[in-house]
Amino acid sequence: MDKDGAQDSLIELRELARAFSAERDWDQFHTPKNLAMALSVEVAELVEHFQWLPSGADAELDDKKRLGIRHEMADVLVYLIRLADKCHVDLREAVLEKMRLNGEKYPAGLVRGDARKYTEY
Amino acid sequence: MDKDGAQDSLIELRELARAFSAERDWDQFHTPKNLAMALSVEVAELVEHFQWLPSGADAELDDKKRLGIRHEMADVLVYLIRLADKCHVDLREAVLEKMRLNGEKYPAGLVRGDARKYTEY
Amino acid sequence: MDKDGAQDSLIELRELARAFSAERDWDQFHTPKNLAMALSVEVAELVEHFQWLPSGADAELDDKKRLGIRHEMADVLVYLIRLADKCHVDLREAVLEKMRLNGEKYPAGLVRGDARKYTEY
Amino acid sequence: MDKDGAQDSLIELRELARAFSAERDWDQFHTPKNLAMALSVEVAELVEHFQWLPSGADAELDDKKRLGIRHEMADVLVYLIRLADKCHVDLREAVLEKMRLNGEKYPAGLVRGDARKYTEY
Repeated sequence: MDKDGAQDSLIELRELARAFSAERDWDQFHTPKNLAMALSVEVAELVEHFQWLPSGADAELDDKKRLGIRHEMADVLVYLIRLADKCHVDLREAVLEKMRLNGEKYPAGLVRGDARKYTEY
Repeated sequence: MDKDGAQDSLIELRELARAFSAERDWDQFHTPKNLAMALSVEVAELVEHFQWLPSGADAELDDKKRLGIRHEMADVLVYLIRLADKCHVDLREAVLEKMRLNGEKYPAGLVRGDARKYTEY
Repeated sequence: MDKDGAQDSLIELRELARAFSAERDWDQFHTPKNLAMALSVEVAELVEHFQWLPSGADAELDDKKRLGIRHEMADVLVYLIRLADKCHVDLREAVLEKMRLNGEKYPAGLVRGDARKYTEY
Repeated sequence: MDKDGAQDSLIELRELARAFSAERDWDQFHTPKNLAMALSVEVAELVEHFQWLPSGADAELDDKKRLGIRHEMADVLVYLIRLADKCHVDLREAVLEKMRLNGEKYPAGLVRGDARKYTEY
């Protein structure tokens, strides 16, 4: 919580998700394994919106689809935050650390405009 | 950016991910459809760590597995943030909105201690 | 087994997968839940080959990628066969039954050339 | 087709799936990439049935869930068969080849009762 009383959103959402689960006594189901499965299911519901589209860019979406996509993204983030919470992972720090590693694996000068996996170099 | 100069982490990470992609000229590959696929692949790499474990709780993990899990979570969040960015979705707002809807679908008094899907009620 | 001594391939592969698992004492890990997770992981390894390609058609693939795709498909089928075996599902009968249902949900005359999900009609 | 007029089931189902798609003019959507995505979505619908269960064994399932699982398995197999067809992969041969390779990667004497990934040896 900073001087403005504003909380970082990853912390704010973690607290909300914790409370949501506690109120429903769902922690008993939220093992890391189960949460990982639930996360994969929500991602697939997101993927489903894109599967028959050429690229998924805005012009290909109507309002109903756009709302569905927005809601599925929310579900994905909630399960990811729950899983990180149960595994004692600070998501922000994990991303900063991983992006440093990715920067070394995919040097900008070497991979520019090339989507091959780094193991193919 | 608040008075302390501290940025909300979802914004901070979005900016980092944007810059990472721009430096590598990868935006051409980052259609929403491709990002949704990449997101599902990263989630599966996370799931893989848990697939043969009883619950995935801390006592079942060694340091190598814990680091792998942490890094896969980071990859999942980065692709989710990229996808949200390309789809003009504010992830924090989307979660707040979705949790309100979920609260209506799964009233605490009704679903307490029950993991069945709301459609089964 | 028919007069030629040839076995139906879904039966033949089920028997091979059973023996493979039994020789390694892996049945203890092969709960339906774990097999479903493993199946999703193998599918993601298949998806990974296609994620940055325009369509995945032959002209976009080199020999290495083609071999990888072939092997991932094999892994997917093996886990599906294992899961069906553990759940006492006859895959051939299940498909015949499901295709009859799909035929009713998506009547050829109605959905011709349209990929929208049947619930959208 | 053998002397009895009985066709191998993987061939029979491939022909049925081809006809189903042709009658609906869906081949235009069935690029390998799109089929891989659709496959991952169907697998997730299968995973969803197991996500909150302890192991997914028979005693944990009611008839409705058992039917759902059966139907999702059918959808998974149909998309896998479609994808293999589009990629000119003979699924039976691919599995036989892959199981030989897996036999070398996981020698029965070495991995007996151990579910760690072969790369961990």
